[in-house]
Amino acid sequence: MSAAYEEHKRMAPERVKVTIITVSTSRYMKASQGIAVDDLSGSKAVEMVKESGHKVVSRKLVNDDKEMIRLEVLRSLYDEGADVVILTGGTGLAKRDVTIESVIPLLDKEMRGFGEIFRAVSYQKIGSPAYLSRALAGTLNGKIIFCLPGSPQAVELALSLILPELSHMVYITGVN
Amino acid sequence: MSAAYEEHKRMAPERVKVTIITVSTSRYMKASQGIAVDDLSGSKAVEMVKESGHKVVSRKLVNDDKEMIRLEVLRSLYDEGADVVILTGGTGLAKRDVTIESVIPLLDKEMRGFGEIFRAVSYQKIGSPAYLSRALAGTLNGKIIFCLPGSPQAVELALSLILPELSHMVYITGVN
Amino acid sequence: MSAAYEEHKRMAPERVKVTIITVSTSRYMKASQGIAVDDLSGSKAVEMVKESGHKVVSRKLVNDDKEMIRLEVLRSLYDEGADVVILTGGTGLAKRDVTIESVIPLLDKEMRGFGEIFRAVSYQKIGSPAYLSRALAGTLNGKIIFCLPGSPQAVELALSLILPELSHMVYITGVN
Amino acid sequence: MSAAYEEHKRMAPERVKVTIITVSTSRYMKASQGIAVDDLSGSKAVEMVKESGHKVVSRKLVNDDKEMIRLEVLRSLYDEGADVVILTGGTGLAKRDVTIESVIPLLDKEMRGFGEIFRAVSYQKIGSPAYLSRALAGTLNGKIIFCLPGSPQAVELALSLILPELSHMVYITGVN
Amino acid sequence: MSAAYEEHKRMAPERVKVTIITVSTSRYMKASQGIAVDDLSGSKAVEMVKESGHKVVSRKLVNDDKEMIRLEVLRSLYDEGADVVILTGGTGLAKRDVTIESVIPLLDKEMRGFGEIFRAVSYQKIGSPAYLSRALAGTLNGKIIFCLPGSPQAVELALSLILPELSHMVYITGVN
Amino acid sequence: MSAAYEEHKRMAPERVKVTIITVSTSRYMKASQGIAVDDLSGSKAVEMVKESGHKVVSRKLVNDDKEMIRLEVLRSLYDEGADVVILTGGTGLAKRDVTIESVIPLLDKEMRGFGEIFRAVSYQKIGSPAYLSRALAGTLNGKIIFCLPGSPQAVELALSLILPELSHMVYITGVN
Repeated sequence: MSAAYEEHKRMAPERVKVTIITVSTSRYMKASQGIAVDDLSGSKAVEMVKESGHKVVSRKLVNDDKEMIRLEVLRSLYDEGADVVILTGGTGLAKRDVTIESVIPLLDKEMRGFGEIFRAVSYQKIGSPAYLSRALAGTLNGKIIFCLPGSPQAVELALSLILPELSHMVYITGVN
Repeated sequence: MSAAYEEHKRMAPERVKVTIITVSTSRYMKASQGIAVDDLSGSKAVEMVKESGHKVVSRKLVNDDKEMIRLEVLRSLYDEGADVVILTGGTGLAKRDVTIESVIPLLDKEMRGFGEIFRAVSYQKIGSPAYLSRALAGTLNGKIIFCLPGSPQAVELALSLILPELSHMVYITGVN
Repeated sequence: MSAAYEEHKRMAPERVKVTIITVSTSRYMKASQGIAVDDLSGSKAVEMVKESGHKVVSRKLVNDDKEMIRLEVLRSLYDEGADVVILTGGTGLAKRDVTIESVIPLLDKEMRGFGEIFRAVSYQKIGSPAYLSRALAGTLNGKIIFCLPGSPQAVELALSLILPELSHMVYITGVN
Repeated sequence: MSAAYEEHKRMAPERVKVTIITVSTSRYMKASQGIAVDDLSGSKAVEMVKESGHKVVSRKLVNDDKEMIRLEVLRSLYDEGADVVILTGGTGLAKRDVTIESVIPLLDKEMRGFGEIFRAVSYQKIGSPAYLSRALAGTLNGKIIFCLPGSPQAVELALSLILPELSHMVYITGVN
Repeated sequence: MSAAYEEHKRMAPERVKVTIITVSTSRYMKASQGIAVDDLSGSKAVEMVKESGHKVVSRKLVNDDKEMIRLEVLRSLYDEGADVVILTGGTGLAKRDVTIESVIPLLDKEMRGFGEIFRAVSYQKIGSPAYLSRALAGTLNGKIIFCLPGSPQAVELALSLILPELSHMVYITGVN
Repeated sequence: MSAAYEEHKRMAPERVKVTIITVSTSRYMKASQGIAVDDLSGSKAVEMVKESGHKVVSRKLVNDDKEMIRLEVLRSLYDEGADVVILTGGTGLAKRDVTIESVIPLLDKEMRGFGEIFRAVSYQKIGSPAYLSRALAGTLNGKIIFCLPGSPQAVELALSLILPELSHMVYITGVN
């Protein structure tokens, strides 16, 4: 690893502000009717982010709806001061899966390697189904957005790749 | 004009809900410091929209900032129930002009004819400077977004084109 | 007009092969059930193309469906030898209007001026509603595709702009 | 693997309808002249698809030509009822290689992971040349299109990744 | 016209540095063989730019070749200090016409109104053939690029629209 | 490996002409002031390209500036006859990193596999930071452009993937 990498690590914020957004029409509909819903993926993400020493500034549940997904991503970044937004769900191939379609147009730079390495590592664990995920990441105005699949296993695997680099990434993304 | 056009006119909502957003860093900075700012273009838009019988659901002042512009457009549509968002300012060629760059990625369909006819009519009035404007319009999930230049004259001209069709447009855009 | 333009006119084919495709879910559904449907726009197009001395190689009625629209455009060009495909309908702002979305990805070069001049001339006749049309044209592999609105009046106006240039356009588009 | 994955597997069609298209100008030219051509890749694909219990609804040989490739893909999906189209050939870096350029504009969602995992597995087998392939996959209106390299070895490797997931993919892609 | 417009006019540079590039394979080939070529469009452009008080920093003749067009545009802007590059030729619908394809990917902002107003004014003069031109303009890093048709008449008409705004445009485009 | 692959290897040029461009604002600024700068990555690339028997036709140092990066890439290919341009630096996530943004619009075909395999191999060596690189490659008019990260280790790893295939790639990319 390079000297620059080591220096960035030192200058990076120790505590990153993170929003977790679960994208799930079924859960959203139930919650809107006052019915309790479990959200194992969202809970897993919250737990892992906190354990790694970062701060969860908000946690949300949204519909598979482009407008709502984008509004909550932007509200998290702008109003709530999140440095990083992690979405789970809606990254598959079904017609209603619109998380990727909602987020890509918002990005300044796509971090293609994230989706690739996530799928490559996932392939080692689960084989062929790994390539069905459209997980991705990118930057918007010095902040970072991750789109992860909706299963708790996928969230756990993705966060094991993200968390060790989170402070570093936030630091380099914000550099002018 | 066709029979379908006349029928659409009859079925269209009489009263459309509109948000007016002024995009101007200088005004936003002053307002943030508690200094009173005039906003002739925003005021002109509010006045004309009301006079034509529609409802102004909110009026905002934002920075030349992609994130803030997008957040306020989406908040207007989703939280405040606007059918139509009209932005004024930030449509020029300077580097800081980002209204067009902020709005295009949000659109489902671009209504290219709007910018064209606006510039063609503007050319009749002011000649060559008319082609410098990047004014545009488009739809998002059954709603409509207009990006107009920042001068009161341009806003007045644009609204003289928009208001006679506003109910009709909202109706046809929302049809599945 | 330039000498090159006059020379192109002389070398252009006198008789261009044209396919007319009407895009209309309601008519398609009725026709699929064996119910007779009128198609004034398609008929108007066929009549005007023939009167101007060109050949209508096929006439079709399709659904507002991306796959079917693209298949019939390509079948017309490739299997039926059409030089030009003229579609009418599905160019508006409603969600089900997908003619433009179907055709744009097929094009090699977009001929932006066509939609612009069509709307500018249309604005002279009908005023503001002119800007609601997304009519466009472009080339694919030396052939030309036009997307026109669905009303007979719009088809008539558009063809009055297209037909005088049709042979010339086909000639220059096919030049390597 | 998640419970949802196991449930999808149960609900997926056992027998998927597949079209195999070989893209090769040299073979197409010979075949057009009545000369017998071998097509080891196409034959390998047919054999493997059948052995895995799926149905080959059509098999085709086309030119390296955007119009023809798109026409045959769409005809397979729309007229012949294929759920899946597998193309082999034309995915390289030469100017005449246009399979990728032909297919990308037709897709609703790209399944980036397929090309990635194919190349990663291929790299384990053949080393650096693996990265020269532009193999990809994506969805169109609830159906799936794969673009594979033209060598029989590549087709065999790709199908060993595709076939175990084929029913599942077709099921989830078609879900609204 | 607004007060801001008048103020910009006052602050704009009086003398803009312009490069004229003629795109023409036939002329380029002849010139490469030492054969004298006329270039009425290029000469017309040079003459009009000078008469309006601006400076022609270089004049070039290039092939219909994406690489060469881009290289000469960038060399003019970067090495020769041009504020504005005006290309003539290669904006039509023939396969070899690649000026538009070469320039669009270089642009930061497209100035759509220029092509529109040029074609609208051209339509008043020559009728339907006006819509065949793909003339366009846009900005790159605070500088401006125009792509005009190859005929002297078109160049004359386009420059009659451009020259009165040239200083103003260069000023506003360079503002941060 | 296929017979075609072996045949291509035989017909490929033994000696490929390569330009190495280092993208680094800090080094460029110093060099512009006459201050000596080290450039370990550029030197590593020159050394490895030469050792593998290819020819370094030029070596350059540029600013993180879209215009300058594009100009030097095109000048290398067009004026200096390079078959291949290798850029190092400016591929990260910081706002000033514009190498990827500069190069992508110039490409005819993107060779996605290169970035993928580079990151996958890099992940084996350094773990998670591997996915932060946006390294990519693609073709322009029969030539090849690579964008590599700026660290000497990354350059060394990337070239260990590139050099064994360089002649072959140049051969197949130039085939019509």
